[in-house]
Amino acid sequence: MRILLTISYDGTNYCGWQRQLNGISIQQVIEDAIFSLTGERVSLVASGRTDSGVHAIGQVAHFDTNCTIPPEKICLAINGFLPDDIRVLNSSMVDDDFHARYTAKRKTYAYNFYLSTVNLPLKERFATRVETFDIEKAQMVLDTITGTHDFKCFLASGSAVKNTVRTIYDAKIVQNGNDFTVFITGNGFLYNMVRIIAGTIIFACEDKLDKDKLCLALSSGNRNLVGKTAPAKGLVLQSVQY
Amino acid sequence: MRILLTISYDGTNYCGWQRQLNGISIQQVIEDAIFSLTGERVSLVASGRTDSGVHAIGQVAHFDTNCTIPPEKICLAINGFLPDDIRVLNSSMVDDDFHARYTAKRKTYAYNFYLSTVNLPLKERFATRVETFDIEKAQMVLDTITGTHDFKCFLASGSAVKNTVRTIYDAKIVQNGNDFTVFITGNGFLYNMVRIIAGTIIFACEDKLDKDKLCLALSSGNRNLVGKTAPAKGLVLQSVQY
Repeated sequence: MRILLTISYDGTNYCGWQRQLNGISIQQVIEDAIFSLTGERVSLVASGRTDSGVHAIGQVAHFDTNCTIPPEKICLAINGFLPDDIRVLNSSMVDDDFHARYTAKRKTYAYNFYLSTVNLPLKERFATRVETFDIEKAQMVLDTITGTHDFKCFLASGSAVKNTVRTIYDAKIVQNGNDFTVFITGNGFLYNMVRIIAGTIIFACEDKLDKDKLCLALSSGNRNLVGKTAPAKGLVLQSVQY
Repeated sequence: MRILLTISYDGTNYCGWQRQLNGISIQQVIEDAIFSLTGERVSLVASGRTDSGVHAIGQVAHFDTNCTIPPEKICLAINGFLPDDIRVLNSSMVDDDFHARYTAKRKTYAYNFYLSTVNLPLKERFATRVETFDIEKAQMVLDTITGTHDFKCFLASGSAVKNTVRTIYDAKIVQNGNDFTVFITGNGFLYNMVRIIAGTIIFACEDKLDKDKLCLALSSGNRNLVGKTAPAKGLVLQSVQY
């Protein structure tokens, strides 16, 4: 049977979702936990990779198993073999044609900023410090990118992807005191796209980019016109919709 | 001259504030940073110790120095020698008779809870998971302990302190979704007092303690009538008032 898992992780100490030779990945740790539980060497397929240091509240992945544990109890059983910074929140049986990556319709990412003149140890793990934040300027960036666009200017240089058209359905900012979280929902995201959008919000707040420049970046696909790639630690894969 | 520092730290990886033989303390790390900066071996006096795993947003400490760095710049200079999980937020010159511990008039602690049926990796570092939380029952505990009382029942067993009378000036709960933070301000706190109050809130929310039992605990000083000592990781020294 095919099992779907919803997974949360603190990505700080991992080389990202995907198995790698030179680091411990989330995928490897969970596959090893499933092996400890079931004796099966499974291949865990996620909705998409997350980079080194990126976190997740609702990553989704599937695997096939012959184990006889009731599907909804598998999450508890796997958690018994996982370190504290990775937790399976939910498990259920899905149809054999369900695919965590190809069936995904929308994803929501969150990017966390906090406003401070000095690094705050209780914020640094899951957020990026900014010295200025202007909700109106940040919302201008989000409003401009909402809709279907060629997002080539938000693609990490060196990426080989050909189709750079994506659709952003919703993009908003939630403020809580000096904490600002940007939520972006789209049908898919290019490599580093959300982190470059976050860097572009920083640029806008620092008056290094206005709406005209952002529109020119979108129409020209010029990566140099938008912001830097913001740090991985501020990025959280919030949820995947099927 | 005497310098006052306001310090924030993620206490996860330390054996607490105070220097110890069998672990790395916050005090030692900051004293070593001051030595690297000034060449002076100073003694850093805090408003009070925090236990292993307890965090701080506004710990206060003083030390004496002959260095010629302008007082308000000392924080930046020390930060250059500190790890990411400790930061000096502010520095200033104070009178020679100022004492971080003896001059302190009030302290505010925060205790963080989050409501979930499973451990959440993005919350676990700075909060304690609870499976039930009832603001009214929690507020009953806080209302009952507010004022001047003999807090012997909230004293860790084995503590040698003689005067167990303290005054709680204010105690409130702030909710943000499934996150609940309790803020308690008092003129002083017994060893483990806030963590036992937090454990007593958990007891009240689980219907293991009502107001009558709590009043009996206060009047009798019986430690066994109140809750367990809640985990250190949920506790944050919020601020110290002089």
